[in-house]
Amino acid sequence: MFVSAIAFIEGTSKVQQIVEAFSQAIENGEWAPGSQLPSVRELTQTLGVSKFTLNEALDRLRGRNLLTSRQGRGYFVAIDRVRPATANWVDLLPQDLLSVLRRPLATAYGDLRPGGGHLPEAWLDSEAIRQTMRSVVRAPSLRIAGLGTPAGLLQLRQALQQKLHGEGLSVSVEQIITTPNTVQGLDMLMRLLARPGDTVLLDTPCYFNFHANLALHGVKVVTIQRRPDGFDFTALEQLLAEHRPSLYLTTSVLQNPTGHSFSPGQAFRLLQLTQHYHCHIVEDDLYGDLHPNPPPRLAALAGLDQVTYLSGFSKILSANARVSFVVAAPQLAANLTNMKLMSGGVTSELFEQIVYRMLSEGSYAKHRKRMVQRLMEAGGRVEQWLKRCGCELPMGYEGGMFIWAHLPPGINGEQLAQAALKQGMVLAPGALFGYDPAHRDLMRFNVAHSDEPRVQQVFEALLGSAL
Amino acid sequence: MFVSAIAFIEGTSKVQQIVEAFSQAIENGEWAPGSQLPSVRELTQTLGVSKFTLNEALDRLRGRNLLTSRQGRGYFVAIDRVRPATANWVDLLPQDLLSVLRRPLATAYGDLRPGGGHLPEAWLDSEAIRQTMRSVVRAPSLRIAGLGTPAGLLQLRQALQQKLHGEGLSVSVEQIITTPNTVQGLDMLMRLLARPGDTVLLDTPCYFNFHANLALHGVKVVTIQRRPDGFDFTALEQLLAEHRPSLYLTTSVLQNPTGHSFSPGQAFRLLQLTQHYHCHIVEDDLYGDLHPNPPPRLAALAGLDQVTYLSGFSKILSANARVSFVVAAPQLAANLTNMKLMSGGVTSELFEQIVYRMLSEGSYAKHRKRMVQRLMEAGGRVEQWLKRCGCELPMGYEGGMFIWAHLPPGINGEQLAQAALKQGMVLAPGALFGYDPAHRDLMRFNVAHSDEPRVQQVFEALLGSAL
Repeated sequence: MFVSAIAFIEGTSKVQQIVEAFSQAIENGEWAPGSQLPSVRELTQTLGVSKFTLNEALDRLRGRNLLTSRQGRGYFVAIDRVRPATANWVDLLPQDLLSVLRRPLATAYGDLRPGGGHLPEAWLDSEAIRQTMRSVVRAPSLRIAGLGTPAGLLQLRQALQQKLHGEGLSVSVEQIITTPNTVQGLDMLMRLLARPGDTVLLDTPCYFNFHANLALHGVKVVTIQRRPDGFDFTALEQLLAEHRPSLYLTTSVLQNPTGHSFSPGQAFRLLQLTQHYHCHIVEDDLYGDLHPNPPPRLAALAGLDQVTYLSGFSKILSANARVSFVVAAPQLAANLTNMKLMSGGVTSELFEQIVYRMLSEGSYAKHRKRMVQRLMEAGGRVEQWLKRCGCELPMGYEGGMFIWAHLPPGINGEQLAQAALKQGMVLAPGALFGYDPAHRDLMRFNVAHSDEPRVQQVFEALLGSAL
Repeated sequence: MFVSAIAFIEGTSKVQQIVEAFSQAIENGEWAPGSQLPSVRELTQTLGVSKFTLNEALDRLRGRNLLTSRQGRGYFVAIDRVRPATANWVDLLPQDLLSVLRRPLATAYGDLRPGGGHLPEAWLDSEAIRQTMRSVVRAPSLRIAGLGTPAGLLQLRQALQQKLHGEGLSVSVEQIITTPNTVQGLDMLMRLLARPGDTVLLDTPCYFNFHANLALHGVKVVTIQRRPDGFDFTALEQLLAEHRPSLYLTTSVLQNPTGHSFSPGQAFRLLQLTQHYHCHIVEDDLYGDLHPNPPPRLAALAGLDQVTYLSGFSKILSANARVSFVVAAPQLAANLTNMKLMSGGVTSELFEQIVYRMLSEGSYAKHRKRMVQRLMEAGGRVEQWLKRCGCELPMGYEGGMFIWAHLPPGINGEQLAQAALKQGMVLAPGALFGYDPAHRDLMRFNVAHSDEPRVQQVFEALLGSAL
């Protein structure tokens, strides 16, 4: 067995990084089941860590059933590993810095949220949403006692059918299934589409919850770098040929965190390759409606046998009154409805009615148009400001909520984010979006939250003291 | 290998029943992996079915990876079975009569719902709920943009802490985690507590979604009969010793469908036995608040190291504005919060605020008291009516929503339910609550829905024509 040195990243515990590196070597089969690890002394020397650090890492790997130890004989790669143990994986999460930095993104922590994943309260048409809520609550058609319809409120699904038709995706109502939110829609799809041991392809960087959610399903994850030109397509083909992922989970339009959208040509090439290697695509289209002129979605190009589509309204309407939806081939749609009943993934009819009304009465379209315009303006200003700060924007800005920026040379994103938290400012350093060392000097900016003097002031001061 | 004849039940396809019986024999280990099945000719004779029926059943069993076939050599029990294939399990569901009968229970189908699992709209304090919704929507404290707090709205969890304290369960706020509904709370707990291959103990009869949900987790299910005296405790001990279930999922107070509550003595004996055999209990207390004088919950007796508790408000307040909650040992509670984020099982703050207000302003307590009283009165009347119809009530009636009744001799519950559906009446035959043949002449009655002349009229006419 060959144990290589680890290029430790600052700001994350070494224990955590050893656990990650060793887990990967075991999961990938680089270290054969049953093989013996070098001695503790050798390992501390190779890795350049203390015995204490190493032992803690080895203990955690034993806790995850990846290693076994035999009294006096050292450590061995476990032979009959059960699938990655959910509970242990979860145990592991809160201990590292990344999760400390990630947590405020998923909560309402902090006054200044240039790293946030949502639009500011003031940007949303709260009054229209509240008014719709009030009229839904007043309406006698709202069943207080009743459950929702398993597949989702029919009127809403009909309104979605029309909306999708306008985006080039023509489907029957039976193929549209509502879900409480997009992560849960994805989670239910993964329970239906992925088996433990399958390989799933992700973009790197990508939304951090993709990694977190996939860990629950016991799948192996491989990643490909998302670039301004889509990918290195030769590398993509090699990866498909070698790892044979059964699924590729991606966002084609205004990807989080890069803001990148596949051009029609990139999308076509991607679809051809994944089709050839029998890799099904799950397209999470949470941001498409924020694009001023969205290119065709993968599902619209290749159809639902090759691409399962999901989207939602949490970004544009309200994260609190959530409805998302999945568009799938007929049999998968029917299975998803069963999954909703079996796993409690049912939707609230109250929220379905709110979204239905906003879609059918035109307030959604109006609100969306205003939002797109406002984002374009703010995005342009933030782009200029970031450049003045010495950042580079590898992906440029073509609309939507996010700008992906290279920090000025010498700045470590995680350290900056840690310092910012102490001042009530939430940043989103690149490392949150995948363990690639290349992400260390990158950062995601929310253009709505970053277009504020106070945010820019605090950020510039932090930059100044970090340089 | 011994293949016994199957006592086919009418109204369900024979294919389905063969699949069930063979699956069970394989899952239980009665048929050893690798062993050969008798020839198709022998099987058709033993079972008394056509070759066509048998082949369809064998095909499905192959699809479920339970059987393999070798060209010209016949069928064999699969050797390296993967965990029960979720997708196939789901595929199977819509085909049998039970799911046809089950579906309307989970939807708003039918005007007459003596089989329903919810209270009638008219019984709920819809006006109070709507009014609370309106005032929550008006309140500036409601964040339209924001996500909920991962563990759940703090004020609500504090109100729940007080409520639980009154029920003898004293916990810290950190141990209370909200979930969107009880099934999803259970589903997330199972993802944290159960591993594929584990054995889980259920009551029979029990809520049908327990079986459906557990099928998603790849666990083996064993059942014990719930009886007026709790259980045959000798049988329970044997079962614990032999199958070593790691979990027991149950409802201690007003169990669905029997309406049975463990007496303190039964609870004590149960807790002693499960503790001895290291079997953790998950207590789903969805109905306890409907009991006029609830006995102590298992969690209150044995504490949260032995019992994880969950409950919710869907039955008393509204199935549409749902909030449930889990009460767990500290580490499990922390893991559940992570699971909420990772799987999209987050709660809506809108609903959390509604329930918080109704709890803290006393309208919940008032409404609950009225409901308990009204159920006791209706239950008394329905009890008398059922006896007049020739039913026997093995569990009696001590309050709550359900009465479990033996139909008059010669009546088949499933056939009756099927005939009722054609008249817009939803019944809940015993077979829905577990595959035990003893359930065939039992039925669950919702006392609120059954206390109506039109329901009783239609039911009596159906009984008359069935006899």
